[in-house]
Amino acid sequence: MLKKICAVVTARPSYSRIKTALRAIQNHSELELQLVVAGSALLGRYGNAVDFIEQDGFVIAEKVYMVLEGENPTSMAKTTGLGVMELANVFHKLQPDAVITIADRFETIATSIAASYQNIPLVHIQGGEVTGNIDEKVRHANTKLADLHLVASEEAKERVLKMGEEPNTVFNTGCPSIDLAHYIKENPELNFDPIKKYGGVGEEILWKDGYLVVMQHPVTTEYHSAKKDVLKTLEAINELQIPTFWFWPNVDAGSDGTSSGIRTFRELQKPKNIHFFKNMEPNDFLRLLVNSKCLIGNSSVGIRECSYLGVPTVNIGTRQNRRQRGSNVVDVAYDKEAIKEAILERISATNIKKEVIYGDGTSGNKIAEILAKTSLSFHKTIVY
Amino acid sequence: MLKKICAVVTARPSYSRIKTALRAIQNHSELELQLVVAGSALLGRYGNAVDFIEQDGFVIAEKVYMVLEGENPTSMAKTTGLGVMELANVFHKLQPDAVITIADRFETIATSIAASYQNIPLVHIQGGEVTGNIDEKVRHANTKLADLHLVASEEAKERVLKMGEEPNTVFNTGCPSIDLAHYIKENPELNFDPIKKYGGVGEEILWKDGYLVVMQHPVTTEYHSAKKDVLKTLEAINELQIPTFWFWPNVDAGSDGTSSGIRTFRELQKPKNIHFFKNMEPNDFLRLLVNSKCLIGNSSVGIRECSYLGVPTVNIGTRQNRRQRGSNVVDVAYDKEAIKEAILERISATNIKKEVIYGDGTSGNKIAEILAKTSLSFHKTIVY
Amino acid sequence: MLKKICAVVTARPSYSRIKTALRAIQNHSELELQLVVAGSALLGRYGNAVDFIEQDGFVIAEKVYMVLEGENPTSMAKTTGLGVMELANVFHKLQPDAVITIADRFETIATSIAASYQNIPLVHIQGGEVTGNIDEKVRHANTKLADLHLVASEEAKERVLKMGEEPNTVFNTGCPSIDLAHYIKENPELNFDPIKKYGGVGEEILWKDGYLVVMQHPVTTEYHSAKKDVLKTLEAINELQIPTFWFWPNVDAGSDGTSSGIRTFRELQKPKNIHFFKNMEPNDFLRLLVNSKCLIGNSSVGIRECSYLGVPTVNIGTRQNRRQRGSNVVDVAYDKEAIKEAILERISATNIKKEVIYGDGTSGNKIAEILAKTSLSFHKTIVY
Amino acid sequence: MLKKICAVVTARPSYSRIKTALRAIQNHSELELQLVVAGSALLGRYGNAVDFIEQDGFVIAEKVYMVLEGENPTSMAKTTGLGVMELANVFHKLQPDAVITIADRFETIATSIAASYQNIPLVHIQGGEVTGNIDEKVRHANTKLADLHLVASEEAKERVLKMGEEPNTVFNTGCPSIDLAHYIKENPELNFDPIKKYGGVGEEILWKDGYLVVMQHPVTTEYHSAKKDVLKTLEAINELQIPTFWFWPNVDAGSDGTSSGIRTFRELQKPKNIHFFKNMEPNDFLRLLVNSKCLIGNSSVGIRECSYLGVPTVNIGTRQNRRQRGSNVVDVAYDKEAIKEAILERISATNIKKEVIYGDGTSGNKIAEILAKTSLSFHKTIVY
Repeated sequence: MLKKICAVVTARPSYSRIKTALRAIQNHSELELQLVVAGSALLGRYGNAVDFIEQDGFVIAEKVYMVLEGENPTSMAKTTGLGVMELANVFHKLQPDAVITIADRFETIATSIAASYQNIPLVHIQGGEVTGNIDEKVRHANTKLADLHLVASEEAKERVLKMGEEPNTVFNTGCPSIDLAHYIKENPELNFDPIKKYGGVGEEILWKDGYLVVMQHPVTTEYHSAKKDVLKTLEAINELQIPTFWFWPNVDAGSDGTSSGIRTFRELQKPKNIHFFKNMEPNDFLRLLVNSKCLIGNSSVGIRECSYLGVPTVNIGTRQNRRQRGSNVVDVAYDKEAIKEAILERISATNIKKEVIYGDGTSGNKIAEILAKTSLSFHKTIVY
Repeated sequence: MLKKICAVVTARPSYSRIKTALRAIQNHSELELQLVVAGSALLGRYGNAVDFIEQDGFVIAEKVYMVLEGENPTSMAKTTGLGVMELANVFHKLQPDAVITIADRFETIATSIAASYQNIPLVHIQGGEVTGNIDEKVRHANTKLADLHLVASEEAKERVLKMGEEPNTVFNTGCPSIDLAHYIKENPELNFDPIKKYGGVGEEILWKDGYLVVMQHPVTTEYHSAKKDVLKTLEAINELQIPTFWFWPNVDAGSDGTSSGIRTFRELQKPKNIHFFKNMEPNDFLRLLVNSKCLIGNSSVGIRECSYLGVPTVNIGTRQNRRQRGSNVVDVAYDKEAIKEAILERISATNIKKEVIYGDGTSGNKIAEILAKTSLSFHKTIVY
Repeated sequence: MLKKICAVVTARPSYSRIKTALRAIQNHSELELQLVVAGSALLGRYGNAVDFIEQDGFVIAEKVYMVLEGENPTSMAKTTGLGVMELANVFHKLQPDAVITIADRFETIATSIAASYQNIPLVHIQGGEVTGNIDEKVRHANTKLADLHLVASEEAKERVLKMGEEPNTVFNTGCPSIDLAHYIKENPELNFDPIKKYGGVGEEILWKDGYLVVMQHPVTTEYHSAKKDVLKTLEAINELQIPTFWFWPNVDAGSDGTSSGIRTFRELQKPKNIHFFKNMEPNDFLRLLVNSKCLIGNSSVGIRECSYLGVPTVNIGTRQNRRQRGSNVVDVAYDKEAIKEAILERISATNIKKEVIYGDGTSGNKIAEILAKTSLSFHKTIVY
Repeated sequence: MLKKICAVVTARPSYSRIKTALRAIQNHSELELQLVVAGSALLGRYGNAVDFIEQDGFVIAEKVYMVLEGENPTSMAKTTGLGVMELANVFHKLQPDAVITIADRFETIATSIAASYQNIPLVHIQGGEVTGNIDEKVRHANTKLADLHLVASEEAKERVLKMGEEPNTVFNTGCPSIDLAHYIKENPELNFDPIKKYGGVGEEILWKDGYLVVMQHPVTTEYHSAKKDVLKTLEAINELQIPTFWFWPNVDAGSDGTSSGIRTFRELQKPKNIHFFKNMEPNDFLRLLVNSKCLIGNSSVGIRECSYLGVPTVNIGTRQNRRQRGSNVVDVAYDKEAIKEAILERISATNIKKEVIYGDGTSGNKIAEILAKTSLSFHKTIVY
């Protein structure tokens, strides 16, 4: 009897963070993978992660449409409630031996509730980190609902233990996203033309002599300022006049603010040095990064993959607040001049090391092995 | 401008645990109470808490029907999901300055999500305790979603702090249920005839020379054994032949098991010494308890109110696992002989003290005062 | 390739109305049955139809929990909305070639919407009849959403055609419930002891020398008078002092009113001649009827099966308003004296014929054959 | 006591169809308007009807977010189910004396169910028409759930009566959209620059010497061909090289197909003569139409307003199937050459009359007056 492991992927970036673990589970002789794709991962306007997943050869056990339109805090809550209802059905039908919930996006708590309320052991990937908005609350609530904790760094492991989880349920596996980065570190050449392959909109920038990459998401609890915040970055990039690839934000309350900021700026300023993409295959994205001069924005990619790959990163604002950083990162506020300065400093920095903070490239296999060997239970009590 | 405090009551026992705080909020010159009654508190077959609430003179701002029939773990999860969707609407409309979620019933996390996702400061009442089933996970997840923690004992306060909450957001107010008990301690006479006033079913037992009270709820994660467990208690009580008032369980996954056990036993054994009630006004219930020989079962009332009132308590099974106990409590397993022995020991015990573990009778006022004086925020970060 | 026919059974009485058709579909060489059991058919307190279905050897493709507690018009609407959401998922997964919705219970429109909105041909069983409450609206709305109409009488066929449906999509198959009645007509002996086999509550009445059967459902649009209405019948029966088997009502807004009326009456009047059942296997129920003196209440069984079997029926109130009747039926208002009189008249009537209004006992096979031979489409336009 | 009339607007075009009736209800001395804005009417990417509604000075009683992302038939069904649940709450709270549901969009049945199941008299605007897809089913199902029918033409009135509705509940009021058109007929000058006022995307076409308007919606039951269909129109327009204003489609299953067709065509063909708009204030839109050479597509505006205004219309495909037409309309299939020919014929036609088929410009007042004077009931029975 194989152990049935049900993983729920609710967004494009979550897929990148779990992909090698999914592969390792699929290939493990004692495990059976039940893959559920849900939420914005199914939607065209958030990059159709589902297409990449199917192209990668995964069989999808269930698709769960649960995103309520509105992109405001109320619809975010209602999307989560709907997710609980739908995923309760799904788990009841699939009868998995364990369910995996990934990290800290708002809708991940739907997975946690639907599993734990049905007495299915819950595995939480990438708990124990620290940030600065609703993700912070969701991540730690996921930890308290989960029975097994597969975290991405030693610091995260310490934090989960302090929160009162049983030591024999907490493992530092590193982050599977680093497994992908590991392959790219070995094969770094930019073997495609980004604009030819992905289209996108905006100017046909001359990127071959070096370019920046920007990825800036709205910060939920600062909903009304999302537009103002992103304009600072847009102005900074526009004034620097360095060729830049810019990625649109995920679905989130406030993405309207950010997206609207970008649209407004494009129309009024018609920036000559920026080309916009909706999304990219994960490997292509990493290749784009490793060959870039600098990543700018507030994506966790700057903290994780870029630390491993040694890509200079300018991290803006509070979103990655207190996540463990490597030497590649410089933090700045939402301030045009500070952003410009930090970019210029980073692209000429010489002391950037490649570091092993979030894993050494073997996380996927470690996760599968722990799932196979650990006895899973849904009974737990705080240790103190 | 009054601070609008929205409290969500989802079940009869939760109302008892918050009633004096609701009154104190209502009467406080700086606060406005927005009372939401939801879930099983609206349903006749769980005791129509809503009727007591209205009789007590509270104005109900919104009623939220959210209980999905089925009484299994799947419907428990779906009820919670539906609760998130409905309460998101309610909070969006009421625009409270803070939302109160009470303790650890499964559906309380719906309140927590609907508030925190909409950036409304969340107040959690009675976090930091320890039990042994899904309540345990829900309680601590509520803590991680909440911004202000009003706990019921020093032990609970220590635990919430250890979990990483900011010290200036954690207050030991005691439990408002003790405020009710305080009044009864001063006025203990049994001033009504239980059977005349509440009807109920079963024999017209002769209770005036002493009686037992039983209240045994299903333990969610032991769903399939709920029936077997309650039969042990029924057999023990039946063999003792002491007049007994027995209260039906709340709505919970498994209540079917417990209720079915009771029904089966009644039909087959026709116990001569047991009278069954669905529910009772809180004050009447406390008067019944304070005049009883012993409380038997797994209700938290045995741990809290009975400790304050000095009522002997036989606590069965794991449901109150590791909650701080007074000298009134003896713990036993699901074992007929052990239950019988423990009851006989308790009703003749002489060393039972009245203790102040869960408050001194002023919790309601303390809670209102803290809500009025504390600056409420929805930004938080774990302290370590 | 077999044609996949998905039937949705949402309540115990609906199962009786479709059972022989389900069997015939299952056995048909060109059809595959996909049976979905939903709503109150899954719930213990409405008679656990699901158990009978499984005992009859049907494989259940999906179970859909969708009943929201409350038993008021709001929860009835919300149950229906939830049903649409859940059944949309179910049909999306099962990919049937046609979906069957049965008759006119409030939640049947959920089946109709979930199928027709997904461009799945919709088959409506038992349209074209006339009654007097929300069922009336639901039934005709189902007709307008449906692509194929399998009705139970010539009168019903005429009515569906008048409503503008294409003549080649309307067939009078009779009602499958008559197929069951046909078997009982041939084998009428009461081969079981009702109280021994089904338990129930109330007096151990002496029924062997003749008895009445009562089945009275709440009428939705007269929600507040459900309790008052049923009390008239209770008083009439109590005064007649003829041994009576009384069946509890279905889930419906107002069932609380009816049930509460019954409970109140039992407690206060302790009727000596009434025994109460929750439900009975369909064949046993028909045997009970065929051997009874008279059926009293407002069940459609009195109009249909009892017409075929020649069982005298006193039909109370508006619920069966304008349904085609046989000579077995007498109609009365909610009036104690009128009910008593009508019962006494019926049990001594000598002119009651067995009539073939709702089919001749071969409906199940007719339905399967039409489904196999008809080309199913989801395109339709009103004919005028 | 004013009669409380609750109208539910779920989409931008529905608002145009009801606006003057809303105003007349608001101004009527015996009526009180309760306006609910729901569904895509709240969403930016479908034109933010809510903003126009508020600019027009209406007070919105409730906003209901209910659109589930996905834009496929399954999410259309689930949106409807969610709408039932949410609107049930809304009506329960508002306690209207009647609810208005408008026309035949898929989600309008949610309004009908939520009202009729709660015994609130339901008023259906614009029943009795005939088209060719899911709208056809929804419209007639709305009729069967409704208690009062306010239809837009004599033909529609005849049809509703044939369907079995009581004659004293069916009134031909004309369509309120014609009231708006009436004002524009009197004041036809194009008093704004469309591109300056509304932006939009595409070429800055030279429209002052005459232009076409295109509005083509996906036809739900032909989901997969939506893209192919719209390409025919795009090619025809592109080849004609007449300046054209093109409006994006509404939210509907398939809008993705249509939108995707438009996007693809723009990228590949870069049409020089087309400018694209998302939406326009209703009066501005009518002004644009009355000054245009021809309307092309499948919008009901071509059948209704354009008949009244005498605007030549090329109606493509089955969407307006069998709706009563004036002399302004020519019908064509999805065929490039036929579309081109029809446009050329229409823009030189000389025999186009202004006709009064769908009202004479006083519908809003008629509707309000009928609502005030008619006794509203929720009891109905089919007449035959």
